[in-house]
Amino acid sequence: MPVNIKDVAKEAKVSMSTVSRVINNNYPVKEETRKRVEAAIEKLKFSPNVLARALINQNTKTIGVLVPRIDNLFFPTVIKAVETSLKDSGYSIYLCDTGDKADQEVMYINSLMARQVDGIISIDPKTENIKSGFYEDVSKDLPLVCINGYNKNIKCNFVLNDQESGTRQAINYLLELGHKNIIFVKGRKSYSYDLKKDVYIDILKEHKLLKNKHIVDVGQGNSYETVYVTMDIMIKELKNVSLPTAVFACNDLMALGVLNACKRLNYEVPKDVSIIGFDNIVISSLVEPQITTVDQNMYRLGESAAKMLLDVIKDENQQTSIIRLNTKLITRDSCRRV
Amino acid sequence: MPVNIKDVAKEAKVSMSTVSRVINNNYPVKEETRKRVEAAIEKLKFSPNVLARALINQNTKTIGVLVPRIDNLFFPTVIKAVETSLKDSGYSIYLCDTGDKADQEVMYINSLMARQVDGIISIDPKTENIKSGFYEDVSKDLPLVCINGYNKNIKCNFVLNDQESGTRQAINYLLELGHKNIIFVKGRKSYSYDLKKDVYIDILKEHKLLKNKHIVDVGQGNSYETVYVTMDIMIKELKNVSLPTAVFACNDLMALGVLNACKRLNYEVPKDVSIIGFDNIVISSLVEPQITTVDQNMYRLGESAAKMLLDVIKDENQQTSIIRLNTKLITRDSCRRV
Repeated sequence: MPVNIKDVAKEAKVSMSTVSRVINNNYPVKEETRKRVEAAIEKLKFSPNVLARALINQNTKTIGVLVPRIDNLFFPTVIKAVETSLKDSGYSIYLCDTGDKADQEVMYINSLMARQVDGIISIDPKTENIKSGFYEDVSKDLPLVCINGYNKNIKCNFVLNDQESGTRQAINYLLELGHKNIIFVKGRKSYSYDLKKDVYIDILKEHKLLKNKHIVDVGQGNSYETVYVTMDIMIKELKNVSLPTAVFACNDLMALGVLNACKRLNYEVPKDVSIIGFDNIVISSLVEPQITTVDQNMYRLGESAAKMLLDVIKDENQQTSIIRLNTKLITRDSCRRV
Repeated sequence: MPVNIKDVAKEAKVSMSTVSRVINNNYPVKEETRKRVEAAIEKLKFSPNVLARALINQNTKTIGVLVPRIDNLFFPTVIKAVETSLKDSGYSIYLCDTGDKADQEVMYINSLMARQVDGIISIDPKTENIKSGFYEDVSKDLPLVCINGYNKNIKCNFVLNDQESGTRQAINYLLELGHKNIIFVKGRKSYSYDLKKDVYIDILKEHKLLKNKHIVDVGQGNSYETVYVTMDIMIKELKNVSLPTAVFACNDLMALGVLNACKRLNYEVPKDVSIIGFDNIVISSLVEPQITTVDQNMYRLGESAAKMLLDVIKDENQQTSIIRLNTKLITRDSCRRV
């Protein structure tokens, strides 16, 4: 068990705050007491206080992590990966939940800078703050890595998934299973939905299936509410299509909404409707039938961002870079050959 | 937008590290430069660096939060509540994922003490560390609140749910719906399962239904694996009971496993089988049919722990205390009258 300040206090028969004063050298301590504390530190091989070290070494061994919503099925896995990857290098993380608000993001980054963090990882940074150049500015002064939110005009370090090839893989899989009618379910305008929609249309064109284009916009993003809204909308949509059909949903919460809609309509999945999701959030494997989806590598996203940040911290002058991770189709039980 | 160290640097036309040197007064800076930085600080009304303040005020405005697994459906909500509640008082949180290991818990607490946190919240602390007196020792030196893990022999601050009355409410609800055969599904030995089992047996005795006692131990805890294991075991169990029947599951993941078992057996929920869960994790409301469950108040648990910790920080001499939150039955669509 590592030695802590409490053990030193016990050994030296003083209070913890006295030990702290000796280490930080910021309040007067009797010479005799100081010697006793120093002897205890020596005897127990206690490594001195991180805070005091921070002011000496000019690094705090802390990393700020910004997340839009921690109570979400996607982000906790990313954070776990970041925490685990940084721990071995002695870093602790400050966790900041921005509530998906651009002004909170700025507020937190300022607060993290005031705390002299050694670096920042921002998960799904707000487009406003990317476009305004805020992130580019910050990254000139402080090691910074963004997970997603990529913008080619901004000089920043990015780690992201190759959503384009993931979408292509998923839709091609449905075509290979013989589906010619593929409904595309998306949320309100976002970079990710637009990119996926373009792939969908491109593939339909390639296969001369553009006449079968069927796009449903559920007007929602990536929240639990999405499941209910998608279900309601898809109950109406599915009534008007000839079965069997296939659905590509832009995320797993939408896919779950489609699955629930099928249950309400007494349509069997995958017999009547094949469903494919995106993200591979845990819930997609816990429902019956388990949903076929595209793995977003949430753990690898966090891990890669942490490693990249450590590299940037080591060498502050390096060029900004982009890591694009491959996604992977996870075939489960929600699709079948027609 | 709050002023940050970067704004000061820009205003004073110096680098960020120069501003930091002036504030921390730890490296030589030219007098003329120092004056310019000070003028910029004055002009922009920049509040000085948190780290420097920490050494002066003897508080770091940081709280350590320990969690067994952040990538779990239960804990992120608790953490969100803690973070949100502490933010307004100017605290940042250090997030530590212990991987549900007792030695990691000790390691992290030592590391947090070395970082001079102002307090610690430990979510689901390991029984070993509670019983060994480790937590009692730590809480003598540092404001500490445990969420769950209650042990009446240990002097510590605890926030927990009244699981006993929650279980009673759920089982009585099934009885009121006319169910006389209630299967009790639990995991491997733990304080929480034992407590719930005692309530189950007591109620059966009160209603002279002890002959109908049917306990299934799925040998699992509160992990995603639980869903699959419960499904497999319950497929066998449910084949041998006369329908309709009811199932009380000790947590929602088990309840979901029971629901999936019913689907595999083509049993309708709630027509053939009524299911009631515990915890109210988000997934219980996202499946079809939505699962009736007992709300564990995850947000309120975190909020109460944060408030309690702030109280302890303000008055370090106060007695340890216990907050027991009431649970609440959330009736949804997985139970019906027989």
